[in-house]
Amino acid sequence: MFVLVGGSTATARIPGISAAGASPELLAHTPSADLEIVYYGEPVSSSVVPVSPTGCPTPAVITRAVLETLERSATPIDGGLAQPTAAPTISVANSCGVDIRSPPAVQSAESAFMAGKSLGERLPTDSLTIGETIPGGTTTALAVLTALGERASVSSSLADNPLELKRSVVDDALTALDHEPGAFANRPIDALRTLGDPVLATVAGLTVGALETGCGVTLGGGTQMAAVAALVRHAGYHEPLTIATTSFVGADDTAPIQLLVDDLDCSLTVTDPGFDGQSHPAFDAYEAGHAKEGAGMGGALALATANGISMARVRDQTIAVYDRLLESAPVEP
Amino acid sequence: MFVLVGGSTATARIPGISAAGASPELLAHTPSADLEIVYYGEPVSSSVVPVSPTGCPTPAVITRAVLETLERSATPIDGGLAQPTAAPTISVANSCGVDIRSPPAVQSAESAFMAGKSLGERLPTDSLTIGETIPGGTTTALAVLTALGERASVSSSLADNPLELKRSVVDDALTALDHEPGAFANRPIDALRTLGDPVLATVAGLTVGALETGCGVTLGGGTQMAAVAALVRHAGYHEPLTIATTSFVGADDTAPIQLLVDDLDCSLTVTDPGFDGQSHPAFDAYEAGHAKEGAGMGGALALATANGISMARVRDQTIAVYDRLLESAPVEP
Repeated sequence: MFVLVGGSTATARIPGISAAGASPELLAHTPSADLEIVYYGEPVSSSVVPVSPTGCPTPAVITRAVLETLERSATPIDGGLAQPTAAPTISVANSCGVDIRSPPAVQSAESAFMAGKSLGERLPTDSLTIGETIPGGTTTALAVLTALGERASVSSSLADNPLELKRSVVDDALTALDHEPGAFANRPIDALRTLGDPVLATVAGLTVGALETGCGVTLGGGTQMAAVAALVRHAGYHEPLTIATTSFVGADDTAPIQLLVDDLDCSLTVTDPGFDGQSHPAFDAYEAGHAKEGAGMGGALALATANGISMARVRDQTIAVYDRLLESAPVEP
Repeated sequence: MFVLVGGSTATARIPGISAAGASPELLAHTPSADLEIVYYGEPVSSSVVPVSPTGCPTPAVITRAVLETLERSATPIDGGLAQPTAAPTISVANSCGVDIRSPPAVQSAESAFMAGKSLGERLPTDSLTIGETIPGGTTTALAVLTALGERASVSSSLADNPLELKRSVVDDALTALDHEPGAFANRPIDALRTLGDPVLATVAGLTVGALETGCGVTLGGGTQMAAVAALVRHAGYHEPLTIATTSFVGADDTAPIQLLVDDLDCSLTVTDPGFDGQSHPAFDAYEAGHAKEGAGMGGALALATANGISMARVRDQTIAVYDRLLESAPVEP
C-alpha cells in the first residue's frame, strides 16, 4: 500500500525557506494539488500545477507516473492541509502547523500521532510505503532533528540549500524556548508539539502503528523522512525501517543522508531515475538540483524497481503525465 | 471512474424499515464499513461485516469482487456518514439525514447538492458509475418520488418489502406538512431538503455536475437510483442516463423498476450474477430475496460485463472476498 500524507506549516511562509510553490500564496495549495495529481493524474480543485519559482514541476508527477505503470492507486491522507483537496482523504491531523518560532508548532501533535498510529495498526497491508508533501518540511525536520539531539542536517527543494537560514530559524525557536539542542531526546511527542509539523506527527504515528503489527515500512522521501525515523527511534521502536529517496537527495552534499540513516540504524535505498542527458522540461530542473524529492517520489521509484519496472518506462510515463498536465493546466514558470 | 457514496438517515431507525444491518444499533455503521470493504477489501475501523438480520452479507462484497477482477479502485464519498470510516473520502454532505416525519429531513440539502455538482463537474473522467450505501434509503426514495409526483414504487433490502409501512411513513410526513403528492414537482432541492436524504442530494448533484461536462453517468443501484434520476429530470437535465441494477431488483414485483425507468426516460441495465444453483453462503440469501442490491452492486456487475468479465469469474472472486472477510471478521447471522 502506498499512502501520501499532505499538510502544511506556516514555517513555509518565511521568505527563502521553500521552493514548493511558484509564489508564497501558492505554497498553501501545493499539498492539496499534489494529492490530486497523485490520485487522479491531474489537479482537480483548480487548474494550478505546483511548480517551483523556477518552474520545476512537482515531484508528484513522477510518483503518479510510477503508480500508473504499476496500475496502483495511492491512498491520500490529510495531515493538516491548509486548503481543501478534491482527492479522497483519511483525516489524521486536523490543523495546520504554526511557525516554529511561535511554539507550540502543533498543538494537536499527540492526537495526530495517536490517530496516525491507530490507522497504521489497522491498514490491511504487510508492506506500507509512506510519502509526504508539505512545503517548509525540511525546516521543521531540522528543528525536530536538532531538538532530539540528532545530526542537524537536512536537504532542500531549492538548488542552493538555504541551510544557514533554516539553522537560524531553528536557533531562534530554541532560544525563545530557552532550550538546548537535544532538549527533547526521547520525548518525540514534545518535540513534535513544540517544533514539528502535522505531517511529521502523522507519518511518525502511521509508522509506529504499522511496525506494531509487523508491517514493513518504507519512508519514501529525503531528510524529512530521516526526521520521522528519528521520532520513531526516540519513541522506542527499533524495528527495521527503510528510507527510499532519490539520487538527487543522495547527491546533496549539504545534507549527507547516508550519515543520518546510519545514525538511526535504518536502511537507505537511493534510486536514480536517469533524468541526465534526457533534455525534457519534466526532467531538466531536477538535473539542475531543483525539487530533488517529494510527494513520495523516492518511495515510488523504489517500488518501480522492486516490481521490475525500468527507469526508462518510468521516464516515458512521466512524460505522458507531464504532457497531460500541460493540456489540462499550462505549467508556467 | 467508480464512486461510492455513503451516508445515513434517521428514517432507517423506524422499526421494520431496513435490513442493512444485523440490529438497529449496527445500521449506522453499515455505510462506513461498506466504504471500507469496497476500498480495502475488508472492514478496517472495526471487525464487523455488515449483514442483514437474517445474515445476508452486504452487497459491498460483490462490488469489491468486481473491482478486484478489473484491478480498479473505488473513490469513496462521504454523503452524510453517521460513523467515522477508515476509507479515504471526499466530503460532500456534512450531516446525517433526519427522520422524514420531522422535516426538514436534510437542512443542508442545497449545499450538499451544489458540492456534489461542483465535484461532478471536476472529476477527470468521461464515464462515471455511482453507487450508494444508506440504510433506509428506499423509504426516503419513496418520499422523494411521491413528493415529485412520480410513480411511488420502491424495492427493499428485506425479502418481504414493507411497502405499506414505507407508504404510511411517507403519508405521515406529507400530512404533517399539509402537502399532497407532487407538491414538489420541479423543485428537486425542496424535495430533498424536506423529505430526502443526504445521499440522494449528493448523488443527484454529482450526476448533474457530470452531465454538465458531457460525462456519461451510470447510476448503479435500484429504485433509490430511480429517485436520483427523478431529481435530475426535475432539475431540468434531460441527457441520457442509465440505471444499472441487479436481477434481484429487476425481479421484484413490488417495485417494477422498468416502469420507473421508462417514466424518467432512462436506460435500464439489469445484470444477473448467476447466483442460482450455486449453494454458497455468499449467494444463498440473495436467491431468497434478501439485500438485492446496494453499495453499487448493479453498477459493478454492469462494469464487469462491459469489460468482458464473466459472471463465473465475478462469483469466484466474490467467494474469495467473502472467505477473506470470514478470516478477518466472522460473519454472524
